[in-house]
Amino acid sequence: MSDLLESALNPQSVAVIGASENIHKIGGRPIYYMRKHGFGGRIYPINPSREEVQGLKSYASLAALPEAPDLAMVIVGGDKAVDAVSQCAARGVKSVVVVASGFGETGEEGRAVQRAMVDTARAAGMRLYGPNTQGLANFGTGALAGFSTMFVEVPPADGPVGIVSQSGGMSAMAYGLLRGRGLGVRHVHATGNEADITVSDLAWAVAHDPDVKLLLLYLENIANPELLARTAAYARERDLPIVAVKAGRSESGQKAASSHTGSLANEDRAVDAFFRHHGIWRVRDPHAQALAAEAYLKGWRPEGRRLVIISNSGASCVMGADASEELGLPLAELSPATRADVASRLPGFATAVNPIDITAALLSNSGLFGDVLPAVAQDPAADLFFINIPVAGAGYDVEAFARDTAAFERSTGKPVVVAAWQDSVAAPFKAQGIPTYANENDALGTLAQLASHTALMRKAIVPWPAAGAAPALPPGTGRFLNEAQSLAVLAAAGVPVVAHRLCRSAKEAADALAAVGAPAVVKACSGDVPHKSEHGLVALNVGTAAEAAALFDRQWAELAALGAAQEGVIVAAMRRGQHEFMVGARIDPVFGPVVLVGDGGKYVEALQDVAVLVPPFAAADVTAALRTLRIAPLLEGVRGDPPLDIDALAAVVVAVGQLIVGAGGAIASIDVNPVLVAARGQGAVVLDALVERGD
Amino acid sequence: MSDLLESALNPQSVAVIGASENIHKIGGRPIYYMRKHGFGGRIYPINPSREEVQGLKSYASLAALPEAPDLAMVIVGGDKAVDAVSQCAARGVKSVVVVASGFGETGEEGRAVQRAMVDTARAAGMRLYGPNTQGLANFGTGALAGFSTMFVEVPPADGPVGIVSQSGGMSAMAYGLLRGRGLGVRHVHATGNEADITVSDLAWAVAHDPDVKLLLLYLENIANPELLARTAAYARERDLPIVAVKAGRSESGQKAASSHTGSLANEDRAVDAFFRHHGIWRVRDPHAQALAAEAYLKGWRPEGRRLVIISNSGASCVMGADASEELGLPLAELSPATRADVASRLPGFATAVNPIDITAALLSNSGLFGDVLPAVAQDPAADLFFINIPVAGAGYDVEAFARDTAAFERSTGKPVVVAAWQDSVAAPFKAQGIPTYANENDALGTLAQLASHTALMRKAIVPWPAAGAAPALPPGTGRFLNEAQSLAVLAAAGVPVVAHRLCRSAKEAADALAAVGAPAVVKACSGDVPHKSEHGLVALNVGTAAEAAALFDRQWAELAALGAAQEGVIVAAMRRGQHEFMVGARIDPVFGPVVLVGDGGKYVEALQDVAVLVPPFAAADVTAALRTLRIAPLLEGVRGDPPLDIDALAAVVVAVGQLIVGAGGAIASIDVNPVLVAARGQGAVVLDALVERGD
Repeated sequence: MSDLLESALNPQSVAVIGASENIHKIGGRPIYYMRKHGFGGRIYPINPSREEVQGLKSYASLAALPEAPDLAMVIVGGDKAVDAVSQCAARGVKSVVVVASGFGETGEEGRAVQRAMVDTARAAGMRLYGPNTQGLANFGTGALAGFSTMFVEVPPADGPVGIVSQSGGMSAMAYGLLRGRGLGVRHVHATGNEADITVSDLAWAVAHDPDVKLLLLYLENIANPELLARTAAYARERDLPIVAVKAGRSESGQKAASSHTGSLANEDRAVDAFFRHHGIWRVRDPHAQALAAEAYLKGWRPEGRRLVIISNSGASCVMGADASEELGLPLAELSPATRADVASRLPGFATAVNPIDITAALLSNSGLFGDVLPAVAQDPAADLFFINIPVAGAGYDVEAFARDTAAFERSTGKPVVVAAWQDSVAAPFKAQGIPTYANENDALGTLAQLASHTALMRKAIVPWPAAGAAPALPPGTGRFLNEAQSLAVLAAAGVPVVAHRLCRSAKEAADALAAVGAPAVVKACSGDVPHKSEHGLVALNVGTAAEAAALFDRQWAELAALGAAQEGVIVAAMRRGQHEFMVGARIDPVFGPVVLVGDGGKYVEALQDVAVLVPPFAAADVTAALRTLRIAPLLEGVRGDPPLDIDALAAVVVAVGQLIVGAGGAIASIDVNPVLVAARGQGAVVLDALVERGD
Repeated sequence: MSDLLESALNPQSVAVIGASENIHKIGGRPIYYMRKHGFGGRIYPINPSREEVQGLKSYASLAALPEAPDLAMVIVGGDKAVDAVSQCAARGVKSVVVVASGFGETGEEGRAVQRAMVDTARAAGMRLYGPNTQGLANFGTGALAGFSTMFVEVPPADGPVGIVSQSGGMSAMAYGLLRGRGLGVRHVHATGNEADITVSDLAWAVAHDPDVKLLLLYLENIANPELLARTAAYARERDLPIVAVKAGRSESGQKAASSHTGSLANEDRAVDAFFRHHGIWRVRDPHAQALAAEAYLKGWRPEGRRLVIISNSGASCVMGADASEELGLPLAELSPATRADVASRLPGFATAVNPIDITAALLSNSGLFGDVLPAVAQDPAADLFFINIPVAGAGYDVEAFARDTAAFERSTGKPVVVAAWQDSVAAPFKAQGIPTYANENDALGTLAQLASHTALMRKAIVPWPAAGAAPALPPGTGRFLNEAQSLAVLAAAGVPVVAHRLCRSAKEAADALAAVGAPAVVKACSGDVPHKSEHGLVALNVGTAAEAAALFDRQWAELAALGAAQEGVIVAAMRRGQHEFMVGARIDPVFGPVVLVGDGGKYVEALQDVAVLVPPFAAADVTAALRTLRIAPLLEGVRGDPPLDIDALAAVVVAVGQLIVGAGGAIASIDVNPVLVAARGQGAVVLDALVERGD
């Protein structure tokens, strides 16, 4: 952790500018909290109208302090806040937490004031948190430069979870929910408007706290993706799971976000791809973050997804089987030996298949759970265990079930979760440290998340070979390369493109037809007309040289009529293939290069059957992405079709990705549509492409 | 309610065969429960080895009773249960509840025993509940012919909810969850193996209890869809919402269901369509049933879906906006007057757009909620209200928020729900009778469900005109009509079909080409070869009479080579259209005729972009179904395409539906693929069809 972050998360001295005697006020709470939670450093209340605040000597100003504090909190608002930041900079404060709101979230004027504060801070080598932040809290040291109500509502306990959030409310909510589940929390930090310090900065710092075993983030925009990516890489290295909420998924959500913290929008599909690439698991809200926390903290990192369900209710077995199919947790196929063993322990009318229905017989024999669990545990087919008890109570020895379950978990180390909505049934399992949920959905969802996230965290990111020289783009200043130029750039990058000729006369067009062979495609070529089919400038099934020559004349004239540069007419072979795909790449303003692959053809935009990849990625990542498409069933061949050559398609996607990355900004976007993919072993070929110059 | 059902739900006398002194045993509980919950009728314990059971005179046998009881419970198992049913039948018992398990759920042998019991019962005019059932419970009368543990765990209270379930466990779970939310429950009935009485029978009976305002069902199969449909119609008439769980959605779930209650599978897509058609809302589990119960019982039946979100957290506003978009609850566009009014009541830095962020200023001004709510309430743009308080506690006057919210609800009658996960924050709202949820998802999900379900319940089912004569099918015994016959059946039903001729010679084929015009399609026609393209028996783009004649000869010979009846060769016009759809109809073994419409072409089965409709339906239902397809964006025309003639397509779908219904079983299925749909106003035409004969 850098010294500057150290000064904020582990300060030796804290000044509170706008300190209050009232422990329920924002200016009173940090002092109250630090003293209550054992902060060992020096606290300096600053309030010119008091001698003492909460029993501590109060100072008239920063200048009056005996030392430059590591950290200062600015509680005062408006112009006074701006002044206070200047005074902090002048006094040598290392970190300033600006609680005051009314800056960047209110509009351009506020953003300008905010920027000026940051300039002041940076000039003095001071880091700024906020403005519009609830502050920082480190329960490891008692450094509580924050004012959340939640620390009064739910008593803190130091523990292995770190929370970093743009929103104070969401950090408090995650904190409260975790504490409500009996989990300890070390860090609760909010960044507010992120004028200087972002979630990524604090995530980096918290990830380096060796006691932190789970890192939860809440984001409304991703201000510093590069640092977040490095944090994620470091976290994967030390097996620290990161679970993030990224709000503003929708258009209206992004609009609301910008009036909340003044943040800019991220394209949500790219956010998903970015998180997936870096092994960060995305969930919808702090409830979901808290739900899975216990299972992560157990240290479970399942190798597989094969599920065993055990219940005393047949209906729960049915619903569990439904949920397992939805969640992609296949029911483990127990071996004949296991099934015989289980059946021998169950009363005659119970089944010994998975889901295992131990039936209401549990009421008369409380040892059934303890009998059945070890029998199943020996089976190597089982990765994950789910116990569902929708009804129990008087007459059931729930304490024994819980003990047996815990013993099973200890001896196998395999993940086992319980669903029990009755508090009396859940309590003994919770007391035994078994993650226990009110409903099946949450329980199985947690197992699925754990299995998927573990696989994601363990997937290596293999760097691409360093790019050689940037691709040679033809001279010119137009935004778009014409089709011939675009195809040439792809061909130079090793992408197979359709046989074609760029013709400058009717004669050349007629000759070209003979060269590429009939039937052919004839299409006008001009950087000024990137979407030529919309202008009727594409002719298919051209069979004769005469037709080709006539089409040349017509299209050449049409370019002139459109006022477009007459750069030529392309005569290309008409190729047959089995399926048309699209491959795209663009420089996302936030994430940099991102690559798209999906169902191709005319309706790409309308149907949006597309997957997003973040470089660097391997061919295997492309084929995995293809399997998430709605058209995935076609990949293996249906209705007598042979399987598609997805390896050839994947090679195109990788090459397009390396091309845009290697161009280092010289290419803004690449749009390849269609890529015609033939049967396995028969390759893929690009029929049309459009390259957009970067700045 | 029929007398027989009356005898079960409201018996005057109950015998318990296998009565026990021990109130924790299955044979002890019903007696204990009835006496505890005020059953006013006569209870007859039957236990030959005791003089008294729980202080009541015990009888040695049914024969020894002073009267024939209305209802008898059979607790004894195995052969004794079978004997007991016979004795009940002999004694004149009206209803028998067979608790014993080990019958239909164990296999064919058990099913045979079960059928024999039902035969015995029916011969005597007695109705049978179960076997393998937890029994019946009516808290309105204290008639508790059931043994659920849950009635001990969670004290009963009579109320406006009825629960009917195949599974005893799920009925108990729904009961417990509702009681946990403070709601009263009148009926808790389980049907087990449904050898005689099904969920539909009991749903019909409970729907006729005028005190029941919400009916919850749990099903693993739908044994009696016709009665369930009538129940749903009656329920809609009296504004009684039905919310159902249908488990066994997946293949593995259906497998588990069959070993649970021996039930048969329903195709899940058809289940969805059936529920939607009849205005029954489907949810995934009893948790979801309980979640929305309060909102239904409020009597809220929202006319629209426009949502207002109010929160003291900006992040919650962002996440709420995201969720509203996902759930199709558009944020209400408040009028300028409302916005000005709201803004005037909020501190300067808060926004007055929807979502309304009242910010942490709530801490200093507890009246903000009460100020803002009436200002918004006047706006006619708002249908639904959501208040999200992710953080509150010391310093917040939550009691005042709750009072203000309740006053708002009383004065407007508009649905308002709250999300507050802190018990201390939720409690005052709950005390005011406001539906309050732990998280935003549940709260907004409830509003969305309420709005959607209300619209579904109010949608009229317009009956189709009575079918005239059944469609004339050509004579023959083959399973499939040939294509020419199939097209003729459709044409006779008023469906536009492509111009075509069935040819029996090369000469006829050549003539037909001239008649239908080139280019044409030439395809072999034989009821023995329903999937002709798989045999290469379809030729496209046939341009000349000579080609047509040659193709006739080739295909005619090929039919012979395949050993298929040589019924002819079709020469049809090649038609152009904008998009190919599929329309299908079949007799579902459970639900009867169902109709499918979806994206057409070669990959219909692989891509499954299909909607299911249950007759009778209107053209508007078809267009609504089309809008649920993945290809829906294409309907209105994209990339320069004109909008499609979906009215013409809808007319085809209605005609196909009326055709299969009118055939009264003579047609097993109709497969129309493709229906070529042109631009709006240009119609739709069937290019190929396959009609399958019924039995």
